[in-house]
Amino acid sequence: MSELMHVGVDLGGTTTKMALIDESGKMIDKWAIATNTIDNGSHIASDIGASIVRKLGQLQIDRSEISGIGMGAPGFIDMATGFVYKAVNIGWENYPLKDELEKLTGMPAIIENDANLAALGEMWLGAGQGARNIVCITLGTGVGGGIICDGEILHGVSGMAGEIGHITVLPKNGAPCNCGKSGCLETVSSATGIRRLALEALDYNDSDSILRDIFEDKGDISAEDVFDCAEKKDPLSLVVAEKAAYYLGYTLGAISMVVNPEKIIIGGGVSHAGNTLLLPLTKYFKKFSLPRAFESCTIDVARLGNDAGVIGGAWLAKTKIGRIRTV
Amino acid sequence: MSELMHVGVDLGGTTTKMALIDESGKMIDKWAIATNTIDNGSHIASDIGASIVRKLGQLQIDRSEISGIGMGAPGFIDMATGFVYKAVNIGWENYPLKDELEKLTGMPAIIENDANLAALGEMWLGAGQGARNIVCITLGTGVGGGIICDGEILHGVSGMAGEIGHITVLPKNGAPCNCGKSGCLETVSSATGIRRLALEALDYNDSDSILRDIFEDKGDISAEDVFDCAEKKDPLSLVVAEKAAYYLGYTLGAISMVVNPEKIIIGGGVSHAGNTLLLPLTKYFKKFSLPRAFESCTIDVARLGNDAGVIGGAWLAKTKIGRIRTV
Repeated sequence: MSELMHVGVDLGGTTTKMALIDESGKMIDKWAIATNTIDNGSHIASDIGASIVRKLGQLQIDRSEISGIGMGAPGFIDMATGFVYKAVNIGWENYPLKDELEKLTGMPAIIENDANLAALGEMWLGAGQGARNIVCITLGTGVGGGIICDGEILHGVSGMAGEIGHITVLPKNGAPCNCGKSGCLETVSSATGIRRLALEALDYNDSDSILRDIFEDKGDISAEDVFDCAEKKDPLSLVVAEKAAYYLGYTLGAISMVVNPEKIIIGGGVSHAGNTLLLPLTKYFKKFSLPRAFESCTIDVARLGNDAGVIGGAWLAKTKIGRIRTV
Repeated sequence: MSELMHVGVDLGGTTTKMALIDESGKMIDKWAIATNTIDNGSHIASDIGASIVRKLGQLQIDRSEISGIGMGAPGFIDMATGFVYKAVNIGWENYPLKDELEKLTGMPAIIENDANLAALGEMWLGAGQGARNIVCITLGTGVGGGIICDGEILHGVSGMAGEIGHITVLPKNGAPCNCGKSGCLETVSSATGIRRLALEALDYNDSDSILRDIFEDKGDISAEDVFDCAEKKDPLSLVVAEKAAYYLGYTLGAISMVVNPEKIIIGGGVSHAGNTLLLPLTKYFKKFSLPRAFESCTIDVARLGNDAGVIGGAWLAKTKIGRIRTV
């Protein structure tokens, strides 16, 4: 009996990460290549295909030992066909990614949205191990989401399930969001949103603050600065951190009444704030959820960092393509 | 080849509805018995079992022609064991409903929450036909919910998925809810909530209103009165109807970012308001959803009325227990 290995690919706007992972989740090798977005991204698939084929050659691994390729891409994806409708950062529009990748490598491929892929990675080998009902939230430049129910990613009818960054938390007088609406969660709980809240607070308030010192020193502040200062009990930073946690906790409360997860996993840069974020977040999550839903759920920080995507890709290849073969 | 028939049971606090339905969804017979809640509901299962056995006898149908029994009960249910943790109106606590029913009838049984059962019924033969991603909302005394993703009911880790009546829509100064929190959707968009909003509006406002005439005449008003008067363009009633629709639309917008349904089905007494509710509701749903999610979703009124539960029960029996047999 021989076990298959699985290829995970995580396509980003500047770098494409790849990994070869075995049936048990052991990372055999991981590597990255630059994402070449010129000519509307028309070189990307062949670059990735060539890199995978080269790597297997180097490692003297035969294609027959590989289940297939699980790949994440930013943008809207049709899971059934592996078609990428639109991936703005990459330049693709209506791009047949699955077909291209299969043609180039001779291996079956499966395509998924990158945020969903990360959620699957955390479920397999990260903070979600053992849970089958998971909400993953990535707090970075924006707010991304991936929702797993009964072990499967929720896509919804048009691939919009899990777009929790665009749940409205400020129905009136909210800040404009990149999506065209205003008052979305993303406008207050992303790194960008937290920076904006902090700049507003500095403007509105004249009190002494070590956050203000940083602002006057650097000419700018980041969400990281806010949480660093909040950890040092800077009152103004504590107010901003509490506000970001309030809106996120409010949203998690609502989400828990919809999908009732066992585990909520917070990833992205803002998650490095640790308890400075998690403690107020848990307080507000409790406030806006029913006891039975709150008590059956834990909030945790993502564990896999940048590897979540390729691990999720390998998981997809393992569970959706590959099966243990008997030789 | 012979097709199986399916028994659906919908347990309510005063009446238990039952039906025998064939493979194609045709109602062969439906009947009801009183729900006997004395002695902590200890007679209920045997009443139901006896009624089913008697009915099959009358119709000269052999047990071997039945796939099994799909039954809905109010309260928290463990799907795996068919155990009812708590059903307040019925008197059950930790009641092994599935085991009892199977012992009494000699047929396999499957138990589901009653709101979820109604959602499955609407998916099979009602407003949700053809859709596999559905959110059902029942606007009655409370606000109930049943969510179907990829054709399966969402339960979550502790059976709380779909409890959308307890999503907070008024985080500040909301009215108290039966659940112990305040500002839940149920406090503003249920029949009870709409009545309360209308009484507040009458109190706050001195303007002439045909709703006020009804109030002064009857000494009370109902949600139905509000929508009747709104349909006649009574300004005060229009404001109240718009408010109820606003909060429901706000919640549906958030839900659409979580599960991205193809169909939202509104049931319960308040759904009889038709377009007086649906038009403002659709407006606010659009406002609080992303275009791609809004455009792939339609809002519809439930079609099966009180039969939704027994039809959903038969669907469960058909899909989870029964298969077409070859004789």
